[in-house]
Amino acid sequence: MTRVATMPWRQPAPGRATIGAVTANSTGDGVFLRACRREPVAFTPVWFMRQAGRALPEYRRVRAGVPMLESCTRVDMVVEITMQPVRRYGVDAAVLFSDIVLPLKAAGVELDIVAGRGPVMAHPLSTPLDVARLPELEPDQVGYVAEAVRALVGELGETPLIGFAGAPYTLASYLIEGGPSKEHARTRALMRSHPQLWHDLLDRLARLSATFLTVQLEAGAAAVQLFDSWAGSLAASDYAEFVLPHSATVLESVAGFGAPRIHFGVGTGELLGLMARAGADVVGVDWRVPLDEAARRVGPTVALQGNLDPAAALGSPESLARQVERVLACAEGLPGHVFNLGHGVLPETDPDQLTRVVELVHERTRR
Amino acid sequence: MTRVATMPWRQPAPGRATIGAVTANSTGDGVFLRACRREPVAFTPVWFMRQAGRALPEYRRVRAGVPMLESCTRVDMVVEITMQPVRRYGVDAAVLFSDIVLPLKAAGVELDIVAGRGPVMAHPLSTPLDVARLPELEPDQVGYVAEAVRALVGELGETPLIGFAGAPYTLASYLIEGGPSKEHARTRALMRSHPQLWHDLLDRLARLSATFLTVQLEAGAAAVQLFDSWAGSLAASDYAEFVLPHSATVLESVAGFGAPRIHFGVGTGELLGLMARAGADVVGVDWRVPLDEAARRVGPTVALQGNLDPAAALGSPESLARQVERVLACAEGLPGHVFNLGHGVLPETDPDQLTRVVELVHERTRR
Repeated sequence: MTRVATMPWRQPAPGRATIGAVTANSTGDGVFLRACRREPVAFTPVWFMRQAGRALPEYRRVRAGVPMLESCTRVDMVVEITMQPVRRYGVDAAVLFSDIVLPLKAAGVELDIVAGRGPVMAHPLSTPLDVARLPELEPDQVGYVAEAVRALVGELGETPLIGFAGAPYTLASYLIEGGPSKEHARTRALMRSHPQLWHDLLDRLARLSATFLTVQLEAGAAAVQLFDSWAGSLAASDYAEFVLPHSATVLESVAGFGAPRIHFGVGTGELLGLMARAGADVVGVDWRVPLDEAARRVGPTVALQGNLDPAAALGSPESLARQVERVLACAEGLPGHVFNLGHGVLPETDPDQLTRVVELVHERTRR
Repeated sequence: MTRVATMPWRQPAPGRATIGAVTANSTGDGVFLRACRREPVAFTPVWFMRQAGRALPEYRRVRAGVPMLESCTRVDMVVEITMQPVRRYGVDAAVLFSDIVLPLKAAGVELDIVAGRGPVMAHPLSTPLDVARLPELEPDQVGYVAEAVRALVGELGETPLIGFAGAPYTLASYLIEGGPSKEHARTRALMRSHPQLWHDLLDRLARLSATFLTVQLEAGAAAVQLFDSWAGSLAASDYAEFVLPHSATVLESVAGFGAPRIHFGVGTGELLGLMARAGADVVGVDWRVPLDEAARRVGPTVALQGNLDPAAALGSPESLARQVERVLACAEGLPGHVFNLGHGVLPETDPDQLTRVVELVHERTRR
């Protein structure tokens, strides 16, 4: 906390006082957690995937010259960057600034995040020996994450902090493809050709994800999101056989905390029901499936998160407002809606557009 | 034809005689066209999207040192490359070797295909003036395509030739994004913020696609495929409002030829019914939606094409065979099934795997 207060570059974001985040939420006490639990809310809560990121000038200032993964290990930076969108947008939840490959790196996997490309592995995984050598994650290897979460919980006051981890399938796809991939084809080929090796790999990655989530929850995160970013490249039958059991292990492992568990992947329209069955309390939906249809697919016991097209924020304010209204219309009457984008904030987004989204959603849904 | 016969690098593909393609199909006369029309067939026809391409050593030999778009303008090369997979795999249809951005380039749009990246525009389109200046395609600007199609029709004998074009939405996304894009976000933003400009742009691109398909059909192509490669980035409501009318214009414009019109985009599970309604005789399905489910979505009057995961061909022969069986099991009893991959052949594919797929599909479906 003192570390944060003395950061020379820490300044209130333009247009919103530093104190705003906490006071803005004081009338909607617990609105995010209540929506996740499908309880009545004063208004629909809002947060944005990748809200802490490149769209914010204050983020680019802080990150200047600091490599991505290094910034995730510096407690002061993690706290500041996590706080920035809360101050700026008045969102109803913070999300820890980190990266899904961070726990792999922390455990000892040689990898780096290459600007403009994404995570790149020094040694893509291809043999049983590679899998056998995959290191376990020890909680103290991500002690800085626990420390940042504790600092943030204090700093955030009533605004809940969402922790997160990559799901086993998505982590496996990075390890196997060696980096970002359009098709994830080698991953699916390995999965089907060497099912035993695959399940061994995903067992290990499930333990790693579970450890990473547990560290964040023990330090005070109020909810977690399990990102299966690339699960949308799978047919439902493959997802059910090769992926669901391992995601279920992760989600089950943190059930005891009583914190809502959000599960999301882009392009997962065909998988929404299965992702709910994996043990999610909230299923994130991208912009391709309207929320009323998504509700039918996940069933009546699960809340939904989403699903404004991130591209909407690149359009005119009028078209943005129409898209927001459209999402709200589809969510009408659904118990448990957390407003979000259908994928991460695009780096070229004008932050003022997102501020308008928060205001509009709050205003239009206030009961 | 003489041009072809004298090409120094033209050699029979290993493992299959040059004459094989024609004789291999002589017992299944018209099987591809019959399946497209949902008529009874002796066996399920097979072809592969991007069958003429980098997976073939004979293709890499021919293309060595020749830029992609230049190779598409050289009649001898187009003929040779189009024939290679027919000789090699014994597929039941050839597909013209070309590129969806070729007609844009031919019309005068400054663009290039950059190796490892894809089509890149010199001047991405962003203003109404850019749209107004978009040139029309005159048939004689792609005279080499007509010439290649005529030569191929002679060379192919009974094997039908599929022509193709990019659909207006996908062409627009290249023009607007300036190149390949993961999110196509600027395209969706422009579409919704400037609907009149958007519809003007897509009107023009629909004329260009229609002209390009007409050139191929007049020269003797037996079927056409309209590729809306990136339509899967759209929600159904946006597709219906901003895209479907223009794709329908293209498909309608070539209805008079009586040649089957195939319509395909990757990740279009939510759109299959709408893509059928756009006027397709055959809807292509990627690997995410099983064919029996796809049949329910497109309705009873449309044939289906697909949908083996291209990644299956990177797996072991046993797992590949299982995946083929799975596709065939889902297609059981459907009138009108053209076996294909759910997306293009991956460059790293071992061609022998695809030869096995053709043999297996033919053998397992022979009535």
